Amino acid sequence: MPEAGLIFPRDEFRGRVNRLQSHMQAAQIDALLLTTPADVFYVTDFLTRFWESPARPWFVVVPATGDPVAVIPAIGAELMGRGWISDIRTWDAPDPVDDGVTLLADTIAELVPSGGTIGLPMGLETHLRMPVQDFTRLTALIVPRRIADATAIVQRTREIKSEGEIAKIRAACAIADRAFARVPEFAQAGRPLNHVFRDFQITLLQEGADWVSYVAGGAGQGGYGDVISPATSAPLCDGDILMLDTGAVREGYFCDFDRNYAIGAPDDAARRAHAALYAATDVALNTLRPGMTAADLHRILTDALRAEGATPGGGRLGHGLGITLTEWPSLTAKDTTVLREGMVLTLEPGVQITPDKIMVHEENIVLRAEGPELLSARAPQELPQLD
Amino acid sequence: MPEAGLIFPRDEFRGRVNRLQSHMQAAQIDALLLTTPADVFYVTDFLTRFWESPARPWFVVVPATGDPVAVIPAIGAELMGRGWISDIRTWDAPDPVDDGVTLLADTIAELVPSGGTIGLPMGLETHLRMPVQDFTRLTALIVPRRIADATAIVQRTREIKSEGEIAKIRAACAIADRAFARVPEFAQAGRPLNHVFRDFQITLLQEGADWVSYVAGGAGQGGYGDVISPATSAPLCDGDILMLDTGAVREGYFCDFDRNYAIGAPDDAARRAHAALYAATDVALNTLRPGMTAADLHRILTDALRAEGATPGGGRLGHGLGITLTEWPSLTAKDTTVLREGMVLTLEPGVQITPDKIMVHEENIVLRAEGPELLSARAPQELPQLD
Repeated sequence: MPEAGLIFPRDEFRGRVNRLQSHMQAAQIDALLLTTPADVFYVTDFLTRFWESPARPWFVVVPATGDPVAVIPAIGAELMGRGWISDIRTWDAPDPVDDGVTLLADTIAELVPSGGTIGLPMGLETHLRMPVQDFTRLTALIVPRRIADATAIVQRTREIKSEGEIAKIRAACAIADRAFARVPEFAQAGRPLNHVFRDFQITLLQEGADWVSYVAGGAGQGGYGDVISPATSAPLCDGDILMLDTGAVREGYFCDFDRNYAIGAPDDAARRAHAALYAATDVALNTLRPGMTAADLHRILTDALRAEGATPGGGRLGHGLGITLTEWPSLTAKDTTVLREGMVLTLEPGVQITPDKIMVHEENIVLRAEGPELLSARAPQELPQLD
Repeated sequence: MPEAGLIFPRDEFRGRVNRLQSHMQAAQIDALLLTTPADVFYVTDFLTRFWESPARPWFVVVPATGDPVAVIPAIGAELMGRGWISDIRTWDAPDPVDDGVTLLADTIAELVPSGGTIGLPMGLETHLRMPVQDFTRLTALIVPRRIADATAIVQRTREIKSEGEIAKIRAACAIADRAFARVPEFAQAGRPLNHVFRDFQITLLQEGADWVSYVAGGAGQGGYGDVISPATSAPLCDGDILMLDTGAVREGYFCDFDRNYAIGAPDDAARRAHAALYAATDVALNTLRPGMTAADLHRILTDALRAEGATPGGGRLGHGLGITLTEWPSLTAKDTTVLREGMVLTLEPGVQITPDKIMVHEENIVLRAEGPELLSARAPQELPQLD
């Protein structure tokens, strides 16, 4: 069991930092600067919903050797102090004159030799969670140190999940499995979609989610037009296909999968779409192996959909999963990331039923040496019907 | 009533864009580039929890005249198309080769004359939600156009809420009021704090929240040490002070206030702390007027706490509220933002009870010509007791 207040044992964090430092050494990076909720949580155990407030930046510096240093608003000192790192430097934020910039610059100057390089995630699927003007000021303050891209360092480390992490994601998936099994309790013809969304969130909490960071879905005759909209007050109707998708969180780790339901008897096109999605997922579950790329897996899914006579939907057909709802890689034709043992992924094939109707189907897996292991309970083969 | 699918009538959005454009003209800014969920929602009506996925950047360009232009991932086209703007340009994201950068650069080149200036929020409480490398590339692609800070343009516009916005925030507050009234149903001695947090979220959803973006709080003997931590499984005990704080969301608008409860009979120090917080809030409610600054309001609250014999806590004592859990200004000694009619604020005095115990108290108000109007139902004057 982890120590009181820590989500993982201290060794888990030391292992993560060691792996980051090993990548840093290979890339001649003298320190990493991390600013996002996920990156900060990954190295420090600092988990809070307070990131919802955009008011304050938070910084963690990972030096070439030794433990990370937190440079954070004073309001976070108590919580950070419960974690495993001991060097915590604070300022009273928000400060319109100097919102932590000189404190961060001084910390970097102390940890990175003159002429050294600070790695910062600056590539695809990243952003810098601090004001642009402060970043410009920081860059000038730390001269002759320079900043270089560290996206690969962070991604190659974070994308391989420990067994402890996999257990957390499995627990989040089990919560969603139980909630999906209870959808017939609250989704029937006549029920407004926004009530269904609300009840689904309540059910996820009742089944053990710490919080529900993401619920989306759609409903429409024979399929839905979109998978990212909030719910309207339109009632479910006979002939609708209802899709619910969730990223529920347990101890900082997400699940991310969806389920489809027919309201009354589904039409043949919807049945066929669901069967094709199920079959394509089966092909991926049976053939995916470490060493393939994200693009290979995208092709496996699109080929399998076409073999079933279905039209693959556009966009990515799955992605990484863990501390955020979606992580790299993206299952697209252009993403050449190598899929390795220990990666947690969503398989998310989608089909176009008509020009304005789609259906998507999603499972969560961990990639093992011998192939995928399901973390979500497999969806039913037949589209389930709610009466 | 707004048109189908729109959270506000079209005129609300045209008014917002007109106000932004008027500020832009005064600052000689030829277009605004917006990238965050709140800024994008503010000008387009695009409301989705899909922002939870960090995979894709989203852009909206507000030209000097005319309607905003959306430059977004294709997955958002359907939802953006239900809103009021018609110029929606999409790419298949995430794209490791060009994740919307040339499409955005081309759009800017079309809307901004050569030598013109693009405004971007780059100051306090902002961040740029796109990869740093892509921003560097964008900056080069749009030369001889240059980028300038537009924080004040966005903040001076967004901080004054329309009556439609105030009604949404009031509705979110009413949901939390009803949920706080039901806390005695699920918080008693012996109940683990994480169960209380979960039940509180369920209650907020039952009372009408679309989703619950923020729940925090604390519990401890005679006060709590921290207000941003997730809940532990420690049971509530006689003598504890329990604080629950929520940012529940209804139609894209937040409430943000807390309530304190004594588990069993509170000790005198806790009673006095609550009385001082209540009294200081009353002083602010009675004396705050448009034209004062955030720093003036900070001083009103700290002076009133000291007059009650209490020790004011560090950090800010309130902030703006609206589309995000916290907005500028910050009620600190350093924030000289002028408080104007139509601003929605939290009043959040905190006191230090012992070196490691605090108590905080929060209400939500809209500032009217004649002073504050409460949006949250006033907290009880006496610390309520849960048995």
